[in-house]
Amino acid sequence: MYAAILAGGVGTRLWPRSRRSLPKQFADITGSGQTMIQATVSRIAHLVTPDRTFILTGEQYRSLAAQQIPALPAANILVEPSGRSTAPAIGLACIHLRKRDPDAVIAILHADHVFGDEAHYCTILQQAEIAAQAGYLAILGAEPEFPHTGYGYIKRSHSALTIPGDWPVFGVERFLEKPDLATAQRFLSEGGYYWNVGNFISRVDLLLGEFERQLPELYAGLLRIEAALDTDQATPVLQEVWPTLPNISIDHGIMEGAGQVAVVPLDAGWNDVGSWDTLETLRPADEQGNCLVQGDSVFIASRGNIISGGNRIIALVGVDNLVVVDTGDALLIGHKEQIQQVKQVVDELQNRDRLDLL
Amino acid sequence: MYAAILAGGVGTRLWPRSRRSLPKQFADITGSGQTMIQATVSRIAHLVTPDRTFILTGEQYRSLAAQQIPALPAANILVEPSGRSTAPAIGLACIHLRKRDPDAVIAILHADHVFGDEAHYCTILQQAEIAAQAGYLAILGAEPEFPHTGYGYIKRSHSALTIPGDWPVFGVERFLEKPDLATAQRFLSEGGYYWNVGNFISRVDLLLGEFERQLPELYAGLLRIEAALDTDQATPVLQEVWPTLPNISIDHGIMEGAGQVAVVPLDAGWNDVGSWDTLETLRPADEQGNCLVQGDSVFIASRGNIISGGNRIIALVGVDNLVVVDTGDALLIGHKEQIQQVKQVVDELQNRDRLDLL
Repeated sequence: MYAAILAGGVGTRLWPRSRRSLPKQFADITGSGQTMIQATVSRIAHLVTPDRTFILTGEQYRSLAAQQIPALPAANILVEPSGRSTAPAIGLACIHLRKRDPDAVIAILHADHVFGDEAHYCTILQQAEIAAQAGYLAILGAEPEFPHTGYGYIKRSHSALTIPGDWPVFGVERFLEKPDLATAQRFLSEGGYYWNVGNFISRVDLLLGEFERQLPELYAGLLRIEAALDTDQATPVLQEVWPTLPNISIDHGIMEGAGQVAVVPLDAGWNDVGSWDTLETLRPADEQGNCLVQGDSVFIASRGNIISGGNRIIALVGVDNLVVVDTGDALLIGHKEQIQQVKQVVDELQNRDRLDLL
Repeated sequence: MYAAILAGGVGTRLWPRSRRSLPKQFADITGSGQTMIQATVSRIAHLVTPDRTFILTGEQYRSLAAQQIPALPAANILVEPSGRSTAPAIGLACIHLRKRDPDAVIAILHADHVFGDEAHYCTILQQAEIAAQAGYLAILGAEPEFPHTGYGYIKRSHSALTIPGDWPVFGVERFLEKPDLATAQRFLSEGGYYWNVGNFISRVDLLLGEFERQLPELYAGLLRIEAALDTDQATPVLQEVWPTLPNISIDHGIMEGAGQVAVVPLDAGWNDVGSWDTLETLRPADEQGNCLVQGDSVFIASRGNIISGGNRIIALVGVDNLVVVDTGDALLIGHKEQIQQVKQVVDELQNRDRLDLL
């Protein structure tokens, strides 16, 4: 199996540790001691070697990726000339891989996700590989833990497919957009729905076949890029073609209309680390519910706080349910329930022309 | 007029900007651009020259005082061999001054107080000087702004004394300890009560006369220290005598039993900067009631916060009534109403043997 790791995002919601110059996937957001992309590569290391791993990112992050994953061959860093949605990026990975190994299975992963139970995650990834070998576009579905309204859902078929391996694999009845709360609650009470984790596992020929059938314009662009690979025209052609490719997501562009899609359920504590408040599900809290992600702190009469500190000590006195993120040049203090508004801080800093802080 | 500025305190309640190595009087707590002792000297500069100003502090702070008040003659820094209460310190200043100018008037001031209306404060100080020349131990009394339970109170005489000058001066009927809330409320509704600011203005001979009469043991020690001044025995005698002096405050030891005490009322926005939450009375707040004492900040959906920042930007999101103090190596985040508990942080750091942070 090969892996293509999507690492092109900016991660504004994790400011101030996530910056334009160091987006969250290149930062240690979770306090693990590794950056998120390092953790992503390590997590699957026994399944996919660095030699078979591709990273898709922007030109400005090429050197970060190379520094952080030193075992990765330089040629495996695939640069997206500009930020587009997932379908062009995945198509780019696929044509690189087809040139190298046309029978390959590719796992499309995200550089900024976390799985609490990594062993189970890898087991399910292997089950998905078996489904992919059997001709399916396999997608991982996380058992929903609560009626989240910020994720897409997948409705599975009633019965499991007949696929080798120890873990159930289902057909996909429907992809569902982010639901309202009542709908999400119905999904949970009915059962058979999963959160769409955004991990796709497929034979590369089969996936490119879906591009050709469903996104012929995008596929034509990919063919032009592919024809120039390993020539001195590779970069100019990529630069020319890339901006003309339809800016569409893999879910909308391919998965929803694909022929044989399978979902492999997993219950591995998936976390997309979409905002600071999700961190408390990743790290143990103390008896007062305070979660020290990293750094050093003193808690006096304080409960339910999340601390992502740096070198300085952080003392809390009589405060509850705060998120505190301390970096060298910026400090964020927010209420857990309103921490999504950190985007407004970034907007305000942009207005003030404080590009150094973005 | 001469001044003796008491600068021996430690200021734990203003951690982390106030440290053992840099107590609050030597720090810029209020965001004025001056340290508190610099502001104290500047405030009275047109009344008392540095040549006539004495600073009382510990040996470990002698060089800080010299650096921060470069115009002060080195001999005017009077070192207390160990931290004692106010009566020994004031007695020490008095014997130094008696040697130099036995007819002098001395104003005993604190290095860590702030007055919003400095011009009015100086006017009242001058009025107190007139009262002192007339033979009174004069004391400043602040018009109480609310029924504070943390200050001592002074009950004035019914009628004003006959003292020259444009401002009323009253006799003192009684000194009152820190009252409970009901008592403080009664003081305010009755009228004629003042907060004891702890500024004393007196002829030095008269004040030493009160020491001799009321604290004869302490006075005997002072005489021994005085006899050795300007000899090579000055320091050894001070070191030997100092620990034997009664550890008593000027209020209990002298003022409460003094013969002729006068109170000069002032309404100059006195603030003893006893804790971080008092800072919001010193600096203008924005429309959301956020008070930026120093530093740079972004406020999103946040109200009533007090920020004492440093070099890094501080972004608040959806939080109310916090105190945030950011220094190079420590960060304090507390609820305004519980910020007195900062002492527990200092205790905890002591327990952890983090002497670098105390």
